[in-house]
Amino acid sequence: MNNIKTLFNPNSIAVIGASRRPESVGHAVFSNILLNGYKGIVFPVNPKAKSVLGVKSYPCIVDIPDDVDMAVVIVPNQAVSGVMKECARKGVKSAIVISAGFKETGAQGKKLEEEVKAEARKGGISFLGPNCLGLINTDSSVSLNASFATSMPREGNVAFISQSGALCTAVLDYAKGESIGFSKFISMGNKADVTENELLRFLSEDPNTDVILLYIEDLHDEREFIKIAREITGEIKKRKPIIAVKSGRTALGARAASSHTGSLAGSDEVYDAIFAQCGVLRVNSVKQLFDYALAFSSQPLPKGNRVAIVTNAGGPGIMATDACTSPKYGLEMASFQNRTRLKLKKGLPPTANVNNPVDVIGDAQHDRYELAMHSVLSDRKVDGVVVILTPQNMTDIEEIASSIGRLSQKSSKPVLACFMGIVDVSKGEKVLDSFNVPHYRFPEAACKALAGMHRYVEWVKRPRTEERTFQVDVAGARKIMNKVGKEKRTLLTEIEATRVLEDYGFPVLKSMLARNEKECLKVAEDVGYPVVMKIVSPDIIHKVDVKGVILGIENDKDLVKAYGKMLSDVKKLRPKAKILGVNIQMMAPPGREVIIGMKRDPQFGPILMFGLGGIYVEALKDVTFRLAPIRQLGAFHMIKAIRAYRILEGMRGDKPADTSALAECLERLSQLVVDFEEIQELDMNPIIVYNRGKGCRVAHARIVRD
Amino acid sequence: MNNIKTLFNPNSIAVIGASRRPESVGHAVFSNILLNGYKGIVFPVNPKAKSVLGVKSYPCIVDIPDDVDMAVVIVPNQAVSGVMKECARKGVKSAIVISAGFKETGAQGKKLEEEVKAEARKGGISFLGPNCLGLINTDSSVSLNASFATSMPREGNVAFISQSGALCTAVLDYAKGESIGFSKFISMGNKADVTENELLRFLSEDPNTDVILLYIEDLHDEREFIKIAREITGEIKKRKPIIAVKSGRTALGARAASSHTGSLAGSDEVYDAIFAQCGVLRVNSVKQLFDYALAFSSQPLPKGNRVAIVTNAGGPGIMATDACTSPKYGLEMASFQNRTRLKLKKGLPPTANVNNPVDVIGDAQHDRYELAMHSVLSDRKVDGVVVILTPQNMTDIEEIASSIGRLSQKSSKPVLACFMGIVDVSKGEKVLDSFNVPHYRFPEAACKALAGMHRYVEWVKRPRTEERTFQVDVAGARKIMNKVGKEKRTLLTEIEATRVLEDYGFPVLKSMLARNEKECLKVAEDVGYPVVMKIVSPDIIHKVDVKGVILGIENDKDLVKAYGKMLSDVKKLRPKAKILGVNIQMMAPPGREVIIGMKRDPQFGPILMFGLGGIYVEALKDVTFRLAPIRQLGAFHMIKAIRAYRILEGMRGDKPADTSALAECLERLSQLVVDFEEIQELDMNPIIVYNRGKGCRVAHARIVRD
Repeated sequence: MNNIKTLFNPNSIAVIGASRRPESVGHAVFSNILLNGYKGIVFPVNPKAKSVLGVKSYPCIVDIPDDVDMAVVIVPNQAVSGVMKECARKGVKSAIVISAGFKETGAQGKKLEEEVKAEARKGGISFLGPNCLGLINTDSSVSLNASFATSMPREGNVAFISQSGALCTAVLDYAKGESIGFSKFISMGNKADVTENELLRFLSEDPNTDVILLYIEDLHDEREFIKIAREITGEIKKRKPIIAVKSGRTALGARAASSHTGSLAGSDEVYDAIFAQCGVLRVNSVKQLFDYALAFSSQPLPKGNRVAIVTNAGGPGIMATDACTSPKYGLEMASFQNRTRLKLKKGLPPTANVNNPVDVIGDAQHDRYELAMHSVLSDRKVDGVVVILTPQNMTDIEEIASSIGRLSQKSSKPVLACFMGIVDVSKGEKVLDSFNVPHYRFPEAACKALAGMHRYVEWVKRPRTEERTFQVDVAGARKIMNKVGKEKRTLLTEIEATRVLEDYGFPVLKSMLARNEKECLKVAEDVGYPVVMKIVSPDIIHKVDVKGVILGIENDKDLVKAYGKMLSDVKKLRPKAKILGVNIQMMAPPGREVIIGMKRDPQFGPILMFGLGGIYVEALKDVTFRLAPIRQLGAFHMIKAIRAYRILEGMRGDKPADTSALAECLERLSQLVVDFEEIQELDMNPIIVYNRGKGCRVAHARIVRD
Repeated sequence: MNNIKTLFNPNSIAVIGASRRPESVGHAVFSNILLNGYKGIVFPVNPKAKSVLGVKSYPCIVDIPDDVDMAVVIVPNQAVSGVMKECARKGVKSAIVISAGFKETGAQGKKLEEEVKAEARKGGISFLGPNCLGLINTDSSVSLNASFATSMPREGNVAFISQSGALCTAVLDYAKGESIGFSKFISMGNKADVTENELLRFLSEDPNTDVILLYIEDLHDEREFIKIAREITGEIKKRKPIIAVKSGRTALGARAASSHTGSLAGSDEVYDAIFAQCGVLRVNSVKQLFDYALAFSSQPLPKGNRVAIVTNAGGPGIMATDACTSPKYGLEMASFQNRTRLKLKKGLPPTANVNNPVDVIGDAQHDRYELAMHSVLSDRKVDGVVVILTPQNMTDIEEIASSIGRLSQKSSKPVLACFMGIVDVSKGEKVLDSFNVPHYRFPEAACKALAGMHRYVEWVKRPRTEERTFQVDVAGARKIMNKVGKEKRTLLTEIEATRVLEDYGFPVLKSMLARNEKECLKVAEDVGYPVVMKIVSPDIIHKVDVKGVILGIENDKDLVKAYGKMLSDVKKLRPKAKILGVNIQMMAPPGREVIIGMKRDPQFGPILMFGLGGIYVEALKDVTFRLAPIRQLGAFHMIKAIRAYRILEGMRGDKPADTSALAECLERLSQLVVDFEEIQELDMNPIIVYNRGKGCRVAHARIVRD
């Protein structure tokens, strides 16, 4: 961590590859450090030049007489590992490798990158890159632009971490045009050493950073990311929202996924799950990233989701109302207190609308805006305000902006403005900027940003639950798994799978292997009619296809008949299959069907899945995911987040389903797949769930080990 | 229509209420006409002033010695109807009523508006407004700004119709900052006389308009709108895309909807249907409206959906790829011809990506962009190009822009640019503007706009189908409907409903009323076992609740037993219900279940609905709508647009369902509800559909008349 701190706040820097050629990157980096007010000492390193930009240059870093904390490396890719060795000799703590030509170019580059990593590890150096733009620290006591970006952003409280260097330059360019300031600006490049995880840890303690923006194409270590991000967004004293764009949607499904869970999990859905698990707000575009950042960086968080809208025009007011009442945003229109309505009625013209959205009418000037804003901000049934202005003939834009600004500064509620237009309203926007009131071009963007703030508040306020560890029979399950492993099988029989689940406390249906007619009758007596009979054979995967499943057997006579028929059918259809007997299982009473599953992914590890049963789930992919391990709340979120959740809540007079029992199944599954790394896939399909308090039953189980 | 033409191109105008007070609307309107180069003659009318802005003023319009084509009215609301009377005396053809204080203010204002309408009708005057901003015609041979907007937009080929005046001013302000030009700019206000329908008709013939933008809060006459918009978007010689924002989402469901269809139809979904029926591209925000307009107004339409992306940065390239491959956009990434790949490989550095997205690498200058753009534009497997630039050290932005511009002008394929950034890239954007290449801030916006173009092309290229009229027994159905009406019933019995459907050629299940045991046996013999028995009583709506439905009756013995049981159960549970007998119905073989329904809405008229059967449909609201009448293609679109359509296509080895049979049911339903205006609600729930070629069967029907 100290090395990372040195990256951002070095006492001295060597720029290895600093160049005199004005068009070169080596020149750009050196001059950016030198000319942006860096408070430490910077040394150019260049064997061919005596000085760069008038500063004495050294042929090699080891020639520098003073201590050097940090090195910025801009030399050809082949030379980087050698340079890294020299840095180590010099006692450098951290480095930024800007040079490209590594992993991103193929196998040869990857090898070079490994060499650089090895040298850095030997020398105890932490480094950013390679193939990155560098970093910027706007802190006025440091003032470091160690990048080849053409400009330094304004100082502010937003940190930006990007996996794309080009996006950094584009964003820096936007930043000039928008009212957003940055604390740190970091291009990660190939993430050979320093990744988002170390950077997030550093930013969590950075007093200048209040909001963290993330552009990533992949995560280095998902579970570690979840842990760190969860801390930052919800647990530490000075919590910080993290807003992320994740791009690059490649279907995980493409990796020959044979299980139900696997075929439903695309990597994009898994990233959704990861972000949901640690309170990171995922947005879909860089535009939204900045829309959110504007609000989070300047306004207090709302206490609830009730929004007041103040506007001088009907149309945009309706558009904002549409956005606020859209279910996906999770906001609602505030219903005002009577006194608010009276105040508005008294102060506004008779044609004004004193209900939400408050329409102060097209000819409104700052006095009306002031009255309306004051009234709604002091209403205790209002949690946040979106104020809209369209430039009309009488509109005193700057005065209105400063009224809004003053009231916003006095209030503990968030105020987001939408001044519609570009040219006429720009003066007003400058006034809003001076009061730190975020402003947007269109009402939807303002409402969306407010919805993002509310979503974050929901995360912060959520009840905290622990990872539960259930008392289970690990040894029993281990025995079965080992036996299957020893026999070199990958698919457990249903009886074995059910036993494993039973050992882990799942509510399985009573069932037993029967190897002949007599045993059938005995087991059925034990289990109790009605029963289900299923063929047991290590050679048969799809039992239904070989007529190996008979449901609803009511009595001894039918049982004997069923047994005979099943054996003869299966023998006919699969003459070579080794038949171990039949599984006689208690028949579950009818209820609502759900699926719970797990797929172990080479990248993400164990992914848990929840969905409703039946063909619709597959047709609509209405399932949710989480990486194991999960907590109770996470399990509930998985269940509630399916689109057809209403079915479990109870529709058409149905009672609510026992979602607690389902959540417990998910938690137990989490424990099981963390304990047994050999489990590759697990499907409980279906689980029958009953009304609240009545539990659920696993009707069919399937486990695949490696 | 001639009157409407006069609105936009009058030879002379009277501004009634033209004022000398610089802050007044009457002053703004008059000076806007006078000072924006209007090519006709404008007369101020003001009883208190001798002149306005140096132009001789008249106390009343009738005092003007010359002919007056058009009047702009800015007098207090009370005076407008009197003014309208005078306009009629003067022989004015059309008017713009800017004055507010009408319908929008309540009952009193509504009365005033009716008076104005009456006077206008008497005088044969068409008028825009009241409560509007006015209109603008940029045509240089007219050059009319008959509005109180502070600015006149650039001349261009985009027409904008808005129901919100305030939005007009905001949009005019945006227009100044963006590279978009307008042909006509119209604020409709209260739409007392001229509505979107007349304006669309006018714009369809306006040679200066290529693209029509619409902001509406409601439609005046939906069926007329569908007819006109359908013509404009797809049928006339010079087709024009219409892009619409519809705001104001109030649930139609709130209107005590008792039917299945009714409870599922929110007005917003109905508007989706309306726009889908006439090829109007609905977008969700004003921002998207303009993003689309930029592309449509400047670029040729793509021939297909295959997109090439050219970029100098990986991250934004991935973002664009994500957008293009997102299923909701309907685009796909072009797979290049070999020769294209070879050309790229030869001309680009070895680290460049020569597959799609083409990455010309961060240090690319205009030569590489030119090579890449030229290669992909000449690839016949590419239908459109999104070109991305991020400002890097070596990037010669203006040269690149002009390369792109030149190649775009030579190509018949659409080129959309995304220059990421604001300040550095603005010079490049000006160059793009000069070549009419639309540019966006973020890749997603460019891809979305291209997707919009492709969607429009799909509409234009769609196979044309007619409204089919089936040979049906109208008289038979009429007889039943009349009988029910005469008996003052609103709910048809199932037997009656089934007969009506049978008369209209629906594939109903054979069924008959049986009034005693003997009749039961006879009917069952006719119908063929297995059969279903349902109670028939005008007093019983929910048959299942009174044990009035028994399925799967296999033989005479069971039939007699069932009949006895049902009568006794129903009598016990509903002693007062009048029982007419039981309905013995053929039992449909199992298949996939769907619902087809209709609800007559006071605003929209008959709305047809399609969805899958079962609880999921309700939980997920996975249904589609259309206003009747529909054509065959519309029926197919309804079926294909449900989210769970895969179930009908055939999943898990199922064969495709007979969607043609379902489409025919929808078309027959359309005919039925157009023929019988008294039908208020109709549900066929479920219809069982079989594999392709095997048809479908209506298993249960419910009809409610007024």
